[in-house]
Amino acid sequence: MGGVSTADRAERVPKQDRSRATRQRLLEAAVSCLAEHGWAGSTVSVVAERAGVSRGAAQHHFPTREDLFTAAVEYVAEERSTALRALFPQGAAGGRRAVVAALVDLYTGPLFRAALHLWVAASNEDQLRPRVTELESRVGRETHRIAVDLLAADETLPGVRETVQGLLDMARGLGLANLLTDDAARRERVVAQWAWVLEEALG
Amino acid sequence: MGGVSTADRAERVPKQDRSRATRQRLLEAAVSCLAEHGWAGSTVSVVAERAGVSRGAAQHHFPTREDLFTAAVEYVAEERSTALRALFPQGAAGGRRAVVAALVDLYTGPLFRAALHLWVAASNEDQLRPRVTELESRVGRETHRIAVDLLAADETLPGVRETVQGLLDMARGLGLANLLTDDAARRERVVAQWAWVLEEALG
Repeated sequence: MGGVSTADRAERVPKQDRSRATRQRLLEAAVSCLAEHGWAGSTVSVVAERAGVSRGAAQHHFPTREDLFTAAVEYVAEERSTALRALFPQGAAGGRRAVVAALVDLYTGPLFRAALHLWVAASNEDQLRPRVTELESRVGRETHRIAVDLLAADETLPGVRETVQGLLDMARGLGLANLLTDDAARRERVVAQWAWVLEEALG
Repeated sequence: MGGVSTADRAERVPKQDRSRATRQRLLEAAVSCLAEHGWAGSTVSVVAERAGVSRGAAQHHFPTREDLFTAAVEYVAEERSTALRALFPQGAAGGRRAVVAALVDLYTGPLFRAALHLWVAASNEDQLRPRVTELESRVGRETHRIAVDLLAADETLPGVRETVQGLLDMARGLGLANLLTDDAARRERVVAQWAWVLEEALG
């Protein structure tokens, strides 16, 4: 801060705020766009227009299409993770069934649809693949950590780590089953049953 | 058969065989194409060339792109179902863990990749959506029936139906986790643990 006058600082702070707000609008618009139109229909221009930002400003923040969409999925995943932790400040004390339902909910909204489009596109596009692979592994590790914490699962016991992993695989599969039709009624019954099975398995 | 001479019949039967063989080649080529190149890279022409069949002959069998690819996923799914039943002629008598592993295997090969591309494309394409929704529900019901039979699960008991459904959701999620990276080692540990959990849950 040496040499920066008070007046300079006052001007710069709102500018940084504006820049951060623009970035957030772009990231949120990118996830909605991906969820609704898929990878083929998602470009930096389409997202810039949706966010009410000039194409130049969008490219200042995100030089490539890959930058924008991987950053968007990561940003929204972090938002969801933070919100999930905030929902259960006391972890599994509020009951494991509610935690299982909330974990499964992570995979049924626009974020999962957006991520799914990105994964599937990455499986055929060499430019996207390493970025999305790395992103998926980072987000997956964080989700696993949250699940272990909120379920109060003791991973030092044999099988507990795999039990939690399998639950998150199931959540991902339930998300996929919700892609074309509203699967909420069936999902609720499966979650109720498996929350009970999980309770037995985690002890 | 009235009025058809022996000579006519002898000529017609091989022609029907050839037609069926052409159809099969097209269906198998369509699934491989979808798995490797996704929906955007999969057209009737590309599949016809891959199968060594003229474009006209391909269109005789499958008038539209939607016809070809939904028929292909259904055909290969039926082949896999038949093969799975044949693997366990005595059902769960061979051990539930082997059955769980074989069910999960349904979701890790080219058929699942092809079906995934079709589902994701259908979520954004109105022309494809009703076809794929109907196909998914038909294939899903058949897979559920096979799982119930092979696991010797008694669906008259409360929770058993949802237990089997959750297992198939988990299998689907494990398939998705295998899309970008080889997830076989982790998957094997999850399957071993959940086969054990399932054994407890099914009694």
